[in-house]
Amino acid sequence: MVDSKGRRRVIISNVSPVVEGGQYPAKSAVDEYITISADIFSDGHDEIAASVLVRHIDDPDWVEYPMSHIINDRWAYQLKTDKQGFYTFKVQGWVDHFITWQKGLKKKQAAGQDLSVDLQIGADLIEQAQLKVSKIEKAQIDFWISALKDPISQEDGVVLAMNTELTEVVRSYKDENLISLSPQHEIETERKKAAFSSWYELFPRSASAAQGEHGTFQDVQKLLPRVAKMGFDVLYFPPIHPIGEKNRKGKNNSLVATAEDPGSPWAIGNRTGGHKDIHPELGSLEDFKTLVEEAKKTGIEIAMDIAYQCAPDHPYVKDHPQWFKWRPDGSVQYAENPPKKYEDILPINFETEDWKDLWQELQDVILYWIDQGVRIFRIDNPHTKAFLFWEWMIAGIRKKYPDVIFLAEAFTRPRLMERLGKAGFTQSYTYFTWRNTKHDIEEYMNELVNSQMRFFFRPNFWPNTPDILPPELASGGENAHIMRIILASTLSSNYGIYGPVYEFGINTTHPGKEEYTNNEKYELKHWDWDRYTRIKEIITRINKIRHQNTALQTTWNIAFAETTNDQIISYAKKDPESGNIILVVVNLDVFNLQGAHIKLPADHLGIKPGNQYRLKDLLSGSTYTWQDEWNYVQLNPYEMPAHIFKLEPYN
Amino acid sequence: MVDSKGRRRVIISNVSPVVEGGQYPAKSAVDEYITISADIFSDGHDEIAASVLVRHIDDPDWVEYPMSHIINDRWAYQLKTDKQGFYTFKVQGWVDHFITWQKGLKKKQAAGQDLSVDLQIGADLIEQAQLKVSKIEKAQIDFWISALKDPISQEDGVVLAMNTELTEVVRSYKDENLISLSPQHEIETERKKAAFSSWYELFPRSASAAQGEHGTFQDVQKLLPRVAKMGFDVLYFPPIHPIGEKNRKGKNNSLVATAEDPGSPWAIGNRTGGHKDIHPELGSLEDFKTLVEEAKKTGIEIAMDIAYQCAPDHPYVKDHPQWFKWRPDGSVQYAENPPKKYEDILPINFETEDWKDLWQELQDVILYWIDQGVRIFRIDNPHTKAFLFWEWMIAGIRKKYPDVIFLAEAFTRPRLMERLGKAGFTQSYTYFTWRNTKHDIEEYMNELVNSQMRFFFRPNFWPNTPDILPPELASGGENAHIMRIILASTLSSNYGIYGPVYEFGINTTHPGKEEYTNNEKYELKHWDWDRYTRIKEIITRINKIRHQNTALQTTWNIAFAETTNDQIISYAKKDPESGNIILVVVNLDVFNLQGAHIKLPADHLGIKPGNQYRLKDLLSGSTYTWQDEWNYVQLNPYEMPAHIFKLEPYN
Repeated sequence: MVDSKGRRRVIISNVSPVVEGGQYPAKSAVDEYITISADIFSDGHDEIAASVLVRHIDDPDWVEYPMSHIINDRWAYQLKTDKQGFYTFKVQGWVDHFITWQKGLKKKQAAGQDLSVDLQIGADLIEQAQLKVSKIEKAQIDFWISALKDPISQEDGVVLAMNTELTEVVRSYKDENLISLSPQHEIETERKKAAFSSWYELFPRSASAAQGEHGTFQDVQKLLPRVAKMGFDVLYFPPIHPIGEKNRKGKNNSLVATAEDPGSPWAIGNRTGGHKDIHPELGSLEDFKTLVEEAKKTGIEIAMDIAYQCAPDHPYVKDHPQWFKWRPDGSVQYAENPPKKYEDILPINFETEDWKDLWQELQDVILYWIDQGVRIFRIDNPHTKAFLFWEWMIAGIRKKYPDVIFLAEAFTRPRLMERLGKAGFTQSYTYFTWRNTKHDIEEYMNELVNSQMRFFFRPNFWPNTPDILPPELASGGENAHIMRIILASTLSSNYGIYGPVYEFGINTTHPGKEEYTNNEKYELKHWDWDRYTRIKEIITRINKIRHQNTALQTTWNIAFAETTNDQIISYAKKDPESGNIILVVVNLDVFNLQGAHIKLPADHLGIKPGNQYRLKDLLSGSTYTWQDEWNYVQLNPYEMPAHIFKLEPYN
Repeated sequence: MVDSKGRRRVIISNVSPVVEGGQYPAKSAVDEYITISADIFSDGHDEIAASVLVRHIDDPDWVEYPMSHIINDRWAYQLKTDKQGFYTFKVQGWVDHFITWQKGLKKKQAAGQDLSVDLQIGADLIEQAQLKVSKIEKAQIDFWISALKDPISQEDGVVLAMNTELTEVVRSYKDENLISLSPQHEIETERKKAAFSSWYELFPRSASAAQGEHGTFQDVQKLLPRVAKMGFDVLYFPPIHPIGEKNRKGKNNSLVATAEDPGSPWAIGNRTGGHKDIHPELGSLEDFKTLVEEAKKTGIEIAMDIAYQCAPDHPYVKDHPQWFKWRPDGSVQYAENPPKKYEDILPINFETEDWKDLWQELQDVILYWIDQGVRIFRIDNPHTKAFLFWEWMIAGIRKKYPDVIFLAEAFTRPRLMERLGKAGFTQSYTYFTWRNTKHDIEEYMNELVNSQMRFFFRPNFWPNTPDILPPELASGGENAHIMRIILASTLSSNYGIYGPVYEFGINTTHPGKEEYTNNEKYELKHWDWDRYTRIKEIITRINKIRHQNTALQTTWNIAFAETTNDQIISYAKKDPESGNIILVVVNLDVFNLQGAHIKLPADHLGIKPGNQYRLKDLLSGSTYTWQDEWNYVQLNPYEMPAHIFKLEPYN
């Protein structure tokens, strides 16, 4: 091929998604749509065309999809990623001389100009294409060429010039010499659960039916039907490893523990073992594996909490002293945030010269639990461990086990949370926990869905955690618990709660903190697991709604509706394939009846003016009919703080 | 060195300026400030530090400048580029254990904790640093170490720990193994005129003092004192090459030219020559070179218009037929935008297989005129020529002649205009010509100055051109001409006008077009160059003000002031080095008196509340005193539509 790079007139710039300059793949999940776009333009006035070439890592061939011009020289294509694994894509653009010629011809005809030379130019363009096109019979092409060179009339010539089949044939030929091509970039597509999951967190040690007894994995096994019935598909435990005995914390994080205090599960390791061992009181490794298997049968995956930190009596301290910082007095440096001290926790020193061994061992912990059947890991405070480690560790795991999901539990500054997403975490805890007003929720969702974050940060919304009892839940009681879980589970396709604290509506704050008092982190609890609560009943209904409505199974399809009252938030989601449409309306005021006029985001939903829609409230079962652009809704938080409408057109 | 890359905990991301992923250098000019910034953070709670390493291409060594934390993990340093040519920079960051230790120590002391071990930790940190520090006497360091290890009191220890000299010594040591480094990027620094220039455009053929005679370079030479007196430092001519005779256009772009019609200077080339030749009626090459030299003596540089297109009788058509598109009837394809035809202009086919020779010849045109003494080129419609060509051409010229300035005359879509800036054009025409309201002007300036555009797109504001008589000037008469040139020349440090049409206030529109009727593009004009007009008088004053006030010599230092009336726009500029402050207030309503309260952008200017300022209006000479936050201003467009205040503090 002759050197033709200087002949390529189309410029391709600002390709998206490209994460951190291409250092990381963009995120997708099986059956999700991801927008591939770029600024594409040429010099001059000629028409251009563009397409994206996509190849799944397991496929031999590139597949070409046409891109469309959106606005201001931005071109896009919505790619459906239907297979797990890596996709590679590149964007190409070229000057489309045939379309340019067609458009010019029409304008010249409209202006009454002589077209004889122009029709011959078209014949020449077809001749160039003919050289490469083999599928179409030569006779047909020859006919077109001669008909354009010597048309019955110029009108006839123009009609032929616009012929769809001809257009298709000629456009299917592209002169490779004149095509501009972007660099390649990657999309990593994870399994469906990456995009759609409902998490339930419980402390196994509180699972015993008998008051005062330490719960076991066998006790948890008996709770599986309860969790499944509530509709959760991920059951997540705090760390299940041996708990440090040295400097163990007592109730409410007190410095002195009594003999009965079980300690914090996050103070990991003692004389009986470390991160690859199980706290003896929870049961055996076999018990754990049985639980993982039994859970699967009820549609539940067990998620493990990995906290890379050590109690002072963790075996690592003796076996790998070089992984810790030592103080001049010969003691190991404990965690601190001066003047606060955390003597029961030793942080790992990621600046150690022995970093390679350290990284390997930490990855081995994950590999060990993968071997036991675990595929979902919730990582504790990843932002206090080296970012480069995560990048290496997760990429290594995914290579062998592409179905492993990592959830980043980082409640920290934006750039750090973003980086963890880029470095490979599948899902991330978010600021949702503290986003309460309509403005704040809309702004945050807009940032998550419509900024570059969409390509590397997959939110998982938690209204509470063992560490966080937000003011809204503390002051708003049952109403707030219902309202917040409806928001979490319909705004985000991934969400979770820490139970049964949540469904029991427990909300007694630790003085001066956004935390539960008598926190389960430091003591055994005895729960009446069978107790009926309204919150639990509604959670069950919501999870069913989520499973039955595909529109709620992705986070990226949200469109907010205008409302006339700031206490009423409303948003719609649509699944373009099934046509499933959900409209959620929530009263953010947990104490007062509120009403508002709501304007359907009709454009986003593909609803035309004047169309009649039936709205079925999936929470209450009531049915409404809407036709006008604006419709009135009123919600009493003591009855039900929200509508989750399913929209269906009247035929 | 051991492999320590995994030990580096600081992440550096989103480095700026980086243009098109590093494909192009960022733009700067001699003595301009350019902000180098990055997201820089680490895991955990340790303090970090960051610096930028900068090296001018002519210097052997890197210079290190400390970066400061701005907000949300963004760090920045304002680099002053004081030398023409290329700078390379890279950003580095590291965990600063000494500062972390100092801060922790203070907090622990405040909490009344025992510090004995902590003071020893500090001594260890100093010992590590000592190994590398040679400048400071060992004795001093040994003293610090022993004093920390065995302090008179813990209070004494803390006082020593905070010692400035000690801090400096320890911080000057950085463990190379633990420093994170960004990739390198480039800044191209052009000569001062790139950033500060005042352009005047005239048609040499209209320069004759005698009615009906074709003007010459010798006539233009006589006008140099006039142009210099008005304060312009760039004198720019439309193309000076032979004008095509075939298909020549007549007055007002009519299809048929009479024998007297001189034709459009942009229809380049005839039997007497092409782009490297001079239109015989303008004079000889010697005349031109003399003019360039004489202009220099009056502080004026001659700028040439380069329009890469040909009249049908341009020598290229015969000599290089492969550079054009040919029609089936054997004629050369002329420019068209169907149904419009431009039979006097042949576009160059940048898709030609002979592109290498073409590119070389087009670059040779520039090199030829550089040899004749020209250093400023205004490029006609660069967006209708291949972008890759510009990139190659400009980079090649700059390598040999770094002082050559290119102005892009592209009035087109945003992405194309941006790309030309990235591809190397020094300056660009802008949308200013059509930005009239306060909102539109503020928004546009914000985009130019505060977005990434600042790093690759250098605006040159033109209120008019031979092609554009905007509605504001057509309807607003003399008042509008004065108002618009005050805006152009004070918003942007680069600006220009097409004269003497502008200072004569000529504003008769061609029917249905935003263009002058009886356009000078198609006919000789005879001007009374010595005529006094108020517009001319004010232009002269403005250019003097621009030369005397360094605050107006850059575009990047603008801050808009709040005003209580949308017809009154106000903005301030400050030169941080000289302290020169200019506050501009303009009445955008050219027909009515308008008044407004104005709030000084005090933060931006470094003005403290309660400070008294003297304001001298450099246009009128009047003096005012302001002290309050808000001050009232009233402007009569028939007297003077603006204040250009120089602010000086009372001592």
